[in-house]
Amino acid sequence: MKKKVPGSTQTRRQFLHRIGEAGGAAAVYQAMISMGLLVPGDARAAANQARWREQSRHGLNVSLPTVAVLGAGIAGLSAAYELKKAGYPCYVIEARDRPGGRNHTLRGGDVLTETDSAQQCAFDNDPELYFNAGPARISQHHKNLLAYCRELNVPLQAFINDNRGAYVHSRSAFGGQPVRARELVTAMRGTIAELLAKAINAGALDTEISFAERAQVLSVLRDYGALSAFHRFEGSTRAGLQAGTGGLTPAQAANPLAYEDVFLHPDIPYVPSFVETYNQAATMMQPVGGMDRIAYAFAEQLQEELFYGVEITAIRRSGQRVRLEGRAGAEEGAIEVDYAIITIPPTVLRSIDNDFSAPVRTAISQVQVATPTKIAFQSPRFWESEEDIYGGISWTDPEILQIWYPAGGFGNAQGILVGSYLFGGSDAQTFAALSPAQRIERALVYGEQVHPQYRSNLSRGLSVAWQKVPYSAGGWAISNPAPVLQQADGPFLFAGDHLSYLPGWQEGAVISSMQALANLADMTGV
Amino acid sequence: MKKKVPGSTQTRRQFLHRIGEAGGAAAVYQAMISMGLLVPGDARAAANQARWREQSRHGLNVSLPTVAVLGAGIAGLSAAYELKKAGYPCYVIEARDRPGGRNHTLRGGDVLTETDSAQQCAFDNDPELYFNAGPARISQHHKNLLAYCRELNVPLQAFINDNRGAYVHSRSAFGGQPVRARELVTAMRGTIAELLAKAINAGALDTEISFAERAQVLSVLRDYGALSAFHRFEGSTRAGLQAGTGGLTPAQAANPLAYEDVFLHPDIPYVPSFVETYNQAATMMQPVGGMDRIAYAFAEQLQEELFYGVEITAIRRSGQRVRLEGRAGAEEGAIEVDYAIITIPPTVLRSIDNDFSAPVRTAISQVQVATPTKIAFQSPRFWESEEDIYGGISWTDPEILQIWYPAGGFGNAQGILVGSYLFGGSDAQTFAALSPAQRIERALVYGEQVHPQYRSNLSRGLSVAWQKVPYSAGGWAISNPAPVLQQADGPFLFAGDHLSYLPGWQEGAVISSMQALANLADMTGV
Repeated sequence: MKKKVPGSTQTRRQFLHRIGEAGGAAAVYQAMISMGLLVPGDARAAANQARWREQSRHGLNVSLPTVAVLGAGIAGLSAAYELKKAGYPCYVIEARDRPGGRNHTLRGGDVLTETDSAQQCAFDNDPELYFNAGPARISQHHKNLLAYCRELNVPLQAFINDNRGAYVHSRSAFGGQPVRARELVTAMRGTIAELLAKAINAGALDTEISFAERAQVLSVLRDYGALSAFHRFEGSTRAGLQAGTGGLTPAQAANPLAYEDVFLHPDIPYVPSFVETYNQAATMMQPVGGMDRIAYAFAEQLQEELFYGVEITAIRRSGQRVRLEGRAGAEEGAIEVDYAIITIPPTVLRSIDNDFSAPVRTAISQVQVATPTKIAFQSPRFWESEEDIYGGISWTDPEILQIWYPAGGFGNAQGILVGSYLFGGSDAQTFAALSPAQRIERALVYGEQVHPQYRSNLSRGLSVAWQKVPYSAGGWAISNPAPVLQQADGPFLFAGDHLSYLPGWQEGAVISSMQALANLADMTGV
Repeated sequence: MKKKVPGSTQTRRQFLHRIGEAGGAAAVYQAMISMGLLVPGDARAAANQARWREQSRHGLNVSLPTVAVLGAGIAGLSAAYELKKAGYPCYVIEARDRPGGRNHTLRGGDVLTETDSAQQCAFDNDPELYFNAGPARISQHHKNLLAYCRELNVPLQAFINDNRGAYVHSRSAFGGQPVRARELVTAMRGTIAELLAKAINAGALDTEISFAERAQVLSVLRDYGALSAFHRFEGSTRAGLQAGTGGLTPAQAANPLAYEDVFLHPDIPYVPSFVETYNQAATMMQPVGGMDRIAYAFAEQLQEELFYGVEITAIRRSGQRVRLEGRAGAEEGAIEVDYAIITIPPTVLRSIDNDFSAPVRTAISQVQVATPTKIAFQSPRFWESEEDIYGGISWTDPEILQIWYPAGGFGNAQGILVGSYLFGGSDAQTFAALSPAQRIERALVYGEQVHPQYRSNLSRGLSVAWQKVPYSAGGWAISNPAPVLQQADGPFLFAGDHLSYLPGWQEGAVISSMQALANLADMTGV
C-alpha cells in the first residue's frame, strides 16, 4: 500500500506511477526518458538501474531486507551504492584492504602482492606517476560506468589507443626496424585501393559497379588510398615526411612500405584492426590520476557499509536466509542476512564452502579466465621529447606484445610506461612464472628492440600476473556468461563482469550488478 | 676573437666548438644530438634554434645589436624569447592588448572585436569554459612548438580529432539522419575489402597477387573489412550494436550502411580521410585550459620587452638601421633599432608605409589568405550524457560543416561546443557577412539537424570571422611561401606561419622565426 507523503503535491514518482498504471513498464521507461531521468540507449542496465531506483523507493515504509555484498570490486561497489541509496541495510565484505578488486592503481609506496612475491612500488610521488595494473581504459559508450563517473564526480581524460606515431615492430618485418603506425595504415589503405582500382578499371567488377558509378567509386578510392591520378599508390605524406621537408620547403612523402612487407607478414597487417573494434575505438577515456579513482569514489559513499580484511570462508543457507562465515585475521565469525550479492571471482568462489544449487556450482566451476600480465616502469619521457610519441600503444613481438605510453601529463619530465601487456596465452604464462626481477629483464630485452633508449632510462619496474594475485586468481572470463548465474539462486545473487558479454570491462561489472538488483527487486516485490 | 672565460675549465660550448673546427656544422649538430642538447628529427627549425642559441652565446662579450620584433603572435614571441635568452636588447611591439595574435582564447568577460562589431563573451567562469577562436590543436610531431611547451611548462592534454562516435551527416545522405563515424568507416572498409576479395577470387589480380599469396591476402582482407568467412561484408559490431545487445546477451551487429549510400555521395565518403593526414592524425593535443596558455607563457618571459597597444605606422630604413614609426592611442613616436623581425600578417603589412625592396613588397602583396570562421556556445553536455560523444568532430552540411565537442572536462555539467568551423569559401563569406546574432541563428538552424537538443541547450553564442578581425585581417596563407621573405631584406627579417609550409599551424610560425634568427646570425656574424 502506498501512502501519500503528508504535505506533498504530486511528485515525479507519483506521476511516473500513474503512467505506469496506464501503459505498463514501457510507458514509464519512455516517460523517464522524456523527463531526462534516463539516458536512452541500448543498455538494459540503465533500465534495470532506473527500475531499481524507482521501485526500491516504494518500499521505504516497509521493513527492508538486509543484503550482504561480497567483494568490493566495481560490481559489488555499484550494487552496494544503489542498495544504500535505496535505504537497504547492507554490508560490503572485502578480503583486501582496499576497494576496486582488479581495478587496482599502484603509486609510490604501494605493495603488489602475488602468491609468491610482494613488490613495493618505487615510483616518485607525483599525481601522474601511477600504474593501472588492471583495467586502464573506458569506452565512451560504456554509459552505465560513465554515468557513475558523472554522479560521483570522477574527472576523466582521453586515453589514446590509436596513435599513428606509435610503432609497429616485429623482428621478422621491415628488417627488424620499428615503423610508425601511420606508415603501416597508409600503405594498407594505398595498396588495397590501388588493387581495387586496377580490378575496376579492368572491368572485373562490372556486375557490382555500373559504368555510370565507376568514376565516382574511383574518385573515392583515390582519396581513400591517397592514390595518384593514375590510381597508383606511390607513397603519401600521410605516412610521414622525408627528413628536412615540410617546414621551409614543401613536404615530401616518406618512402612507402612495400606491399610484400605489409601484407605477407603473419602478424603485422592485423595490428591496425584492433582500434576499429567497438570497445577499443576512439574516444577512449581514463580517470585523471588513476583508474582506482572510480573505486574510491564509490567507497567514499559506503564508509559505514564497507568492511575490509574480511575473508569469506562459507556461504550457507539458513532457512530462507543466508549465513556467511568468515575470518578477519585470526578472528572468525558469522552473520545472517536476507540476501547476498556475490561478486567474488569464480576462480576464488569455487573454493569457498557453499550451499549453492548444483547447476550454479557447475556453472561457477566451468568459468574459464584469462591470465593477463603487465609491467610498468618509471622513466624520463624520451618517447615524447625524442620520438614525438604522445600516448598510445606500440605493438611488438609476442614476448611483450605492447608498450603503452602515458595519456596524461604530456610534457612532464617523468612518466610511467607500461612495458608489456599480455592478455594471456603461453607468453603470459612464461612471464607469470618469472620472478619480478626476471620480468623486468625480459621487458627490457624485448623493449629495447623498439626503443634503444630503454635500458638507460627505465627503472623501478613493477609487474603483475593476475593469476597469482590473491582474491583475484585470474583476469576476465573467456567463457560465455552462464545464464543460470544471471538469475537468483534462492537468496544468492551473482554479479561480476564474467556474467556479462563485456568481460574484463568495468561496464560489464556494472551491467551485471544492475541485473542482480533487478532480480532482487523481483524477489522482494518492492 | 674568443676569450677564455677566466677560471672556467672546458665548457660544453667550447667542446662543441672544437668539434665544429674538426668537422664543421654537421659534426656539431651530431654532437649536440648525442649530448641530448637537441632533438633529432626532420626539423631544420631545431637546428636553426640550436645554432642560434649556440652562436649567440659567443657574442655576449661584444656589443649586441638591438632588435625590434613586430607582432606578439607565436612567431614574434618565440623569436623574442630566443633573443632575450641570448642577451639581445629587444622590443616586442604589439598592436593588441594581449599576446598571441590569432592564438586567441576567449573566456567569460572577454571581448571579441571585428571591424563592425564587438561581442562580449558570456560564458560562465570555469577553467574548462573557453573558446579557442584561432588555432585549437597541435600535432604530436610539431616538435619545435612542443619543445617550447615543455620548456615553459604549458600542460597539454589530448585533443580528439577522430571520434568514431561522432556523427557524419548530410541532408542528402541516409535520409538526412546523422550516422556515427564508426558506421561509415566500417562500411567503407567492409565494402572495399569485399570488392577486392571478389576480384582476387575471380582471378582478376593474378598478375599482382600470386596463387601462393592469395590465401594470406584474403585473410588480411577478411580482418581488414570484418568480412564473413565467404568474404562478404554483412555488417560488424565495429559499426555499433543492435539496441539491447552486448550486455547480458551476445552483441549483435547493427545493420550496415548500404554501399550506394556511402560510395555514391559527393561528400560523405571523403570525410573519414581528414584524420588520416599527417597533421591531423592522432595523437593531437591542446594546452589544458586554452591555447593562449602558450602565448601567455612566452609573454611571462618577456615582461620587460613587450609593449602592447602600439600600432606600427611606418617601417623605414635609416642608413643601415631601421626606423619604426608608430602610435599608442593619440601619441605618436619613432624608434631606431638595428634590425626588425616583422611578423605582422601580410594582409595588414601591405598597408603600412615601408622601405622594403621591390621584390619583398611584391611578395607581401601576393600572399593570399584563408577567411576562416568559427562560432562557439556554452551548453550542458548533452552530447556526453545523452549521445555518448566525448570530444571529436561531427561533420555536416557546408553551411556549418563541423561541430566540435570539448576534449577537456569530460563529465562536467557545462561545456563549450564549437557550432561551426569553416576554413573559407563562400559559406564562410556568407557567415562573415552576418551579424553576431544572425550567425547564432544560422548555427542553430543547421546544427539542430544533427542534434535535435540544440536549441534548448545552447546559449551565449560567440563567433569570429578572421577576415574582419583588426590586426589579423584573415586567417592563414593559402599561397605558397615566397622564398624572398624567408631571407633578410637589409635590416628587415620576416617571420610568420605564411613563410612556412605549415600555414595556419603554430609550428609553422616557430619554424619561420627560427629561420629569421638564423638569418640574423648570418648577418651579425655572432
